[in-house]
Amino acid sequence: MTELAIGIDLGGTDIKSGLVASDGRIVARRSVPTEADRGVDHVLDAIIREIEVLRALAPSDSMGIAAVGVGAPGTLSHRRGVVISPPNLPGWRDVPIADRVSSATGLRVVLENDANNAVWGEYVCGAGRGVRSVVMLTLGTGIGGGIILDGRLHRGVHESAAELGHTIVEIGGRPCACGQRGCLEAYASAANTAARAAELLDAGEASCLSEIVARGEALTAAAVSDAAAGDGAASRVWADTCRYLAVACINIWHGFDPDRILLAGGMSGAGRRLLDPVRAGVESMASTMFGEGPEIRLAELGNDAGFVGAALSVFRDA
Amino acid sequence: MTELAIGIDLGGTDIKSGLVASDGRIVARRSVPTEADRGVDHVLDAIIREIEVLRALAPSDSMGIAAVGVGAPGTLSHRRGVVISPPNLPGWRDVPIADRVSSATGLRVVLENDANNAVWGEYVCGAGRGVRSVVMLTLGTGIGGGIILDGRLHRGVHESAAELGHTIVEIGGRPCACGQRGCLEAYASAANTAARAAELLDAGEASCLSEIVARGEALTAAAVSDAAAGDGAASRVWADTCRYLAVACINIWHGFDPDRILLAGGMSGAGRRLLDPVRAGVESMASTMFGEGPEIRLAELGNDAGFVGAALSVFRDA
Repeated sequence: MTELAIGIDLGGTDIKSGLVASDGRIVARRSVPTEADRGVDHVLDAIIREIEVLRALAPSDSMGIAAVGVGAPGTLSHRRGVVISPPNLPGWRDVPIADRVSSATGLRVVLENDANNAVWGEYVCGAGRGVRSVVMLTLGTGIGGGIILDGRLHRGVHESAAELGHTIVEIGGRPCACGQRGCLEAYASAANTAARAAELLDAGEASCLSEIVARGEALTAAAVSDAAAGDGAASRVWADTCRYLAVACINIWHGFDPDRILLAGGMSGAGRRLLDPVRAGVESMASTMFGEGPEIRLAELGNDAGFVGAALSVFRDA
Repeated sequence: MTELAIGIDLGGTDIKSGLVASDGRIVARRSVPTEADRGVDHVLDAIIREIEVLRALAPSDSMGIAAVGVGAPGTLSHRRGVVISPPNLPGWRDVPIADRVSSATGLRVVLENDANNAVWGEYVCGAGRGVRSVVMLTLGTGIGGGIILDGRLHRGVHESAAELGHTIVEIGGRPCACGQRGCLEAYASAANTAARAAELLDAGEASCLSEIVARGEALTAAAVSDAAAGDGAASRVWADTCRYLAVACINIWHGFDPDRILLAGGMSGAGRRLLDPVRAGVESMASTMFGEGPEIRLAELGNDAGFVGAALSVFRDA
């Protein structure tokens, strides 16, 4: 019989959720708006309601719901089940989400950082399956990281490992939202790729991207990668993004020596326009002295990774 | 009764060795020249002779020799017990050192990278004792690394993890001996600290270090750190070394989140002149957003770390 779990991916905009089998098969998926501005209790009620809806969808021939995995952004404690201070959930401070949801549903609840869930989902049933060590870069507004070494999720002593977006790639470089300078995220996130393009336009560079701005629309990393093939300014900005990511991959290689590095998150939608130059950058900048490096791949689970990984996290040993 | 092991630290210049108890206590220590130019067999014979000498020193009330741990530099395979191509042992290619030494002595032999042995030694009975996750930077001619996460040595999928000296800190920067550009080692190793000072002198900078060169002596990192307090050029070179090491510590923090980062190797002989500016650099450059960072400490075992860690490696589970 199939073992099932419920996965909840609590984001600043949406609560994505699903009923997931222990092999990663998605039995049902849902999404409702978070409405974070309506307060902690409103969001917790919505999560509990989603769990009850999904629970009712469990097939009668299944073993029922083993547990609920909840993923949340920002600082949190897996060990204590507490969301500490997520940057995109205003007003949330030290919310004991695992206990609250568990009392309301009677189910065991596992809380985990959303980036850890995403890499775990890819590891079990996505671009990381079949190997034992996987490091993932999630390229969204910011850059998150997830690390699995020899089949074990690496959380770190203070549960703050894998903040790979905040490793420094340009000493004294661009200011980062975290307060440091020169972070990978300050160059190669979607938001900062768009920001670097906007800075070139502001400096008077001729580019087809100006038309987007002239229409009153926001510049996006997707627009930059779309324009990169034929537009000089866009091509330079995109090449820089890919070069910084290649350096990050080299540093991940020399630090962790994983089987694979996965590129995930919104920006991975650029597909081979992202993957090929990142691979080429590693090839051209890394020494051959270190032998075979990790295989760099695009993640496969897309927007499902968060809730799939959250659900699968309940089947993990630790 | 005390369990004993023999540790061998095979370096390009010396074979350091010792008889070590399982708690790290050194019962006997020895050192003989490697004479690597006399060939593989000569060196293997010397290692076997050292083992026999140390074996004879085992106290009669001990449990005898559990096994031999051998540490060697450069690329090697712990799993196969083979030294592949150590940079400072010319002529060594694919030497099955574990099998050769084991057949000659009848003892089980464990081969391990010397940097892994050094961090293991510190972890068991040096500056890493009492905690579970330790990352070490060995600051010598080059920069080596060793990583212990949650009590397990992290070797990586291709046994090439922890090459922290070859993480890139200046994109397109100084050429490194490994073939990459901008590696940590290309700035902050002892050899490159001395080289950067020599370049300043060559460029005509006034510095008391010129007197060393005028005497026909080689500039060393120790001379730079000694002169840093009162000499402008030396002070800038040393400050740069410490700043690059601080960036490396921040990147180790955000990647691994260990309890401690240890600074080891010849350059750690500078003591607080190294430790204080590295700690201050981390303090000033790292974001407070990530909470408590790792404690940065000087290693404690000095030149014994290699053979002590080699010996202790035989008591490890994997």
